[in-house]
Amino acid sequence: MIGFTGVALVRADNERDDPAAFARCLADPAARLLVLTGLEPPVAEDGALQLAAMDPARRDALLLGYLEGAPLFVAGEGDGSAPAMRSPALMAALAEMPAADVALYGIARSLVDWHSRHGFCARCGHASVVARGGWARSCPGCGALHFPRTDPVVIMAVEHDDRVLLGRQPSWPAGRYSALAGFVEVGESIEEAVAREVLEEAGVAVAGVRYVASQPWPFPSQLMIACIATAADDALRIDATELEDAFWATRDEVRAALAGDTTRFIAPPGHAIARSLLMAWVVG
Amino acid sequence: MIGFTGVALVRADNERDDPAAFARCLADPAARLLVLTGLEPPVAEDGALQLAAMDPARRDALLLGYLEGAPLFVAGEGDGSAPAMRSPALMAALAEMPAADVALYGIARSLVDWHSRHGFCARCGHASVVARGGWARSCPGCGALHFPRTDPVVIMAVEHDDRVLLGRQPSWPAGRYSALAGFVEVGESIEEAVAREVLEEAGVAVAGVRYVASQPWPFPSQLMIACIATAADDALRIDATELEDAFWATRDEVRAALAGDTTRFIAPPGHAIARSLLMAWVVG
Repeated sequence: MIGFTGVALVRADNERDDPAAFARCLADPAARLLVLTGLEPPVAEDGALQLAAMDPARRDALLLGYLEGAPLFVAGEGDGSAPAMRSPALMAALAEMPAADVALYGIARSLVDWHSRHGFCARCGHASVVARGGWARSCPGCGALHFPRTDPVVIMAVEHDDRVLLGRQPSWPAGRYSALAGFVEVGESIEEAVAREVLEEAGVAVAGVRYVASQPWPFPSQLMIACIATAADDALRIDATELEDAFWATRDEVRAALAGDTTRFIAPPGHAIARSLLMAWVVG
Repeated sequence: MIGFTGVALVRADNERDDPAAFARCLADPAARLLVLTGLEPPVAEDGALQLAAMDPARRDALLLGYLEGAPLFVAGEGDGSAPAMRSPALMAALAEMPAADVALYGIARSLVDWHSRHGFCARCGHASVVARGGWARSCPGCGALHFPRTDPVVIMAVEHDDRVLLGRQPSWPAGRYSALAGFVEVGESIEEAVAREVLEEAGVAVAGVRYVASQPWPFPSQLMIACIATAADDALRIDATELEDAFWATRDEVRAALAGDTTRFIAPPGHAIARSLLMAWVVG
């Protein structure tokens, strides 16, 4: 299972422009509410995501969709802009949470976070308001409609001579190495973004980019696109502003790290697609 | 060749925060300028994109990067917000243009268009200013840094029993049919977005999503992600707000349409990845 996927949420896009449908959901006695505090999830004693009964008088909730047939709302409380990155405590909580709950939390977090950081119209500067049941913001000033951002990011296992290129960023925990990654920019394909990022960060030319899998990553709202690519040669020219270090890992070294052996390096954590990508690379 | 890809632009991300590098590019006698008027491209007599010499006194140009070793700037003139969608005249001009020029135009258009529609900080409403040589906007009010949007879109050839599902939107030219498509939302993978969109638009459950190819689409700045998926059955329940019509096309029908036969339907145009996707599906 890929992290942050696998929740059977029915998003009901066709109802988002229908105020009567929203009112029906609000009044539904089966409706539930997920409250994020400072973007952190409410966790029950058994480790699952804790949902409350919806309060129909509440006016700040966004309608995520339907879960198990019942409307599900989300609301953010506290300072939503505080934890820009995920805390170790959060990642530990997610590691114990059922996969579907992790995915649901990801959707909720990205949506609440986007609203908290997009209170104004980028076109005219006017304060914007929630629209489409929570899935957009509209501007009373100029009429513009703004949709939540989803930023595509490529992450790639670059291979050469049966080894894979791993790098580490200075901000990571000591010993952690992972696949290189970077944002897809306007005007480039996934394949072009992979080639550009590997050349920029490691000075390596690649070809033969193959798609492996994808994952949403809610810190704040990336679409991670995992690929395998082949390097023309193994000489590295590391961009020190992006990477602190990089090396070519053997299949045995990657296999050992994925099994928990930290001798050579510490593998990416469970919910990261980098881990799934390295697992895919190890088995060829 | 996939449309809007294949230009050897060196984006030089590592120089974007360096004002001295920008000044060097501005003063470089080899520097060139691409001027978009109302977002439309300047076309030379031979059909190629027309680049002018850079005017070092010009202060409104964005630095795209390096092309053939020389700095390349872009500037927008006229009402950049006017042509929200591509005009038939524009698509005809692009059909005659060298592939690398089409790709370069796509990058330039997406970037200029994004600046023209994002003059204010979404976080605090203050007027924002160009940053990072043209690849971001910064807010003098709150310090936020905003990056150009790239919105991932899935487009899928849904197959069942050797036929493929095609649909048409009311706004399309008469007779045109194409693969279904839709924006990837926050909190979902590519595979989940494919399944959701096909279920929403056509009432069909799919499995076995396979990635085929990707393409940037500069109207305004999508990342098109083309996939093939398999439908569980062929009963359609069309969402009339999304699709005007849909049908299952045989391999022979798709082959004929791609060859220019408009009897059954008109195939997607050359630069659209829908065309590459249907070509990939036809050959299996």
